[in-house]
Amino acid sequence: MTKAATLAEIAIEAGVSTPTVSKVLNGRADVAPATRERVEGLLRQHGYRRRRAAVQSSQLLELVFHELDSLWAMEIIRGVENVVSEEGLSVVLSESSGRLTPGLSWMDGVLARRPTGVVLVLSGLSPSQQAQLTSRDIPFVVMDPAGDPGQQVPSVGTTNWDGGLAATRHLIDLGHRRIGILAGPRRMMCSRARIDGYRAALDIAGITFDPDLVREGEFNHQTGHQAGLELLRPADRPTAVFTGNDMQALGVYEAARELGLRIPEDLSVVGFDDLPVARWVGPPLTTVRQPLTEMAEAATRMVIDLARGNPPSTLRMDLATSLVERSSTAPPRPLPR
Amino acid sequence: MTKAATLAEIAIEAGVSTPTVSKVLNGRADVAPATRERVEGLLRQHGYRRRRAAVQSSQLLELVFHELDSLWAMEIIRGVENVVSEEGLSVVLSESSGRLTPGLSWMDGVLARRPTGVVLVLSGLSPSQQAQLTSRDIPFVVMDPAGDPGQQVPSVGTTNWDGGLAATRHLIDLGHRRIGILAGPRRMMCSRARIDGYRAALDIAGITFDPDLVREGEFNHQTGHQAGLELLRPADRPTAVFTGNDMQALGVYEAARELGLRIPEDLSVVGFDDLPVARWVGPPLTTVRQPLTEMAEAATRMVIDLARGNPPSTLRMDLATSLVERSSTAPPRPLPR
Repeated sequence: MTKAATLAEIAIEAGVSTPTVSKVLNGRADVAPATRERVEGLLRQHGYRRRRAAVQSSQLLELVFHELDSLWAMEIIRGVENVVSEEGLSVVLSESSGRLTPGLSWMDGVLARRPTGVVLVLSGLSPSQQAQLTSRDIPFVVMDPAGDPGQQVPSVGTTNWDGGLAATRHLIDLGHRRIGILAGPRRMMCSRARIDGYRAALDIAGITFDPDLVREGEFNHQTGHQAGLELLRPADRPTAVFTGNDMQALGVYEAARELGLRIPEDLSVVGFDDLPVARWVGPPLTTVRQPLTEMAEAATRMVIDLARGNPPSTLRMDLATSLVERSSTAPPRPLPR
Repeated sequence: MTKAATLAEIAIEAGVSTPTVSKVLNGRADVAPATRERVEGLLRQHGYRRRRAAVQSSQLLELVFHELDSLWAMEIIRGVENVVSEEGLSVVLSESSGRLTPGLSWMDGVLARRPTGVVLVLSGLSPSQQAQLTSRDIPFVVMDPAGDPGQQVPSVGTTNWDGGLAATRHLIDLGHRRIGILAGPRRMMCSRARIDGYRAALDIAGITFDPDLVREGEFNHQTGHQAGLELLRPADRPTAVFTGNDMQALGVYEAARELGLRIPEDLSVVGFDDLPVARWVGPPLTTVRQPLTEMAEAATRMVIDLARGNPPSTLRMDLATSLVERSSTAPPRPLPR
């Protein structure tokens, strides 16, 4: 048997009827789990791939978040909506984190809905999930600001290393020499890339890397507050802090307030992301803009292209970060020269 | 002909085939506009209502925003997701503002998708749209923080007047007498209710209402900044400002910074909404919490109940606001006593 295996052949090999194979393909719940598993296994084994022409996809695009409580989810939703509304598609929104709907898993729901494609945000797909989508000819793209794409998975990311470099260079150009960094969690590639960019900028400027000025933690306000207090309490505190994201930066703002340090007079702070809130805090935050809306647009266009049979020229696309200078950075006092 | 008019009878009256009437019912694009209009008119005229049993609804719930760029959209999405994930439904997200997808209007898309129900956020439905959904037996609920529901439309709102009263009382209890208000736009019922609550609190405390301390404008940062400067520049400036929402409050924060006024020492500020950002700004914002997530949950439960043939006991439900005291309010200086 080759890739040209038909449903009928798979049915015979699985010892079931052809309609049963068809039910499995369409994510229907009324098939015994053991049967489903056997049929899925054969579909995978034979590299079965339903021809798109054989079934009409719905006018739906699936947008899957790992979790919806991130502040930047809205930026991403906006980007996806921008593209799908031009294309006459509608967005089905879901959260993947361990969500099981009664009787049907998230994946079964997707298979039953026959979407045009799937955009996943920070959500990996297991190899067997990838195989399930591929066998139904449902394309998927990972929008991946964490910079940790799976193998051979089409994905859109951002230039995290360059962002770390630009933020740190900006502080060095202002005259800072003791520059702290509060990095995101090390398990995420984006955190590693940003801290490496920071180290590269120090190295280029001939500033020795000081591990005492490095903290690491989750991407939230509380981490920024705690790590900020740790970094800023010592007498030889840094004159500037580069944070892993804007939420951490706001936590550092709070730590500075508590310690009586004014921003930017006593302390410069640079964030990462450029969420809308960065413009509204006091003082407005200098930050590295991650083009989340544009990344979501690119991921959505990529998945629609795939659905139309136009594979992208590259599987991994990184959109550029850029430094947005606002009022939270200034030369250090006293000037170190 | 009565409500029991069948599709066949409507087809005869419209001079079309029964399948054509069926296509109109299902939002299919392949019907001439004039024919669609004639059939829709007859469906409306006869009060036709498809029995739910006659067609299987999809496992989709439509969530429609007037526009998606509001900061609180995320709070609402989360509430809807909380309920639908329990119920095994998925959310289709769309923006209503003038959106027309190629060939199909938003409404046609809804009719074609056969959702379990529709939750509209701040989006009214025209009477003819209401009739379209009703004839397909698709229930809808308006989630309506603006407090301006249509006639007989099931809706979930919040207690805006009580919120205005509680915010102003809190400031009066702290000793403030010159209390400014920056209200939202007068075209929204919620703005009117909040300012009336403010006036009621002043009245109860025997404080004369001073129109010079009132400003009005859109619910954004820029309005807060501009109106804040206007209110705070005069020598007899108010010692406290109650704003229409948290974004306006952050604009007032910026105005105060520019004028060298410290919060809360020189100026108390109360917001409205309690968006996550209210906790993260400096100082953390005292605000009136509008339970957006709970309102979205209630609206979603209501529409699912309607879909199951359980009409709600009341068409309009208002969830309570509550004052959240943080660090942006304090007694005025010098003390007025």
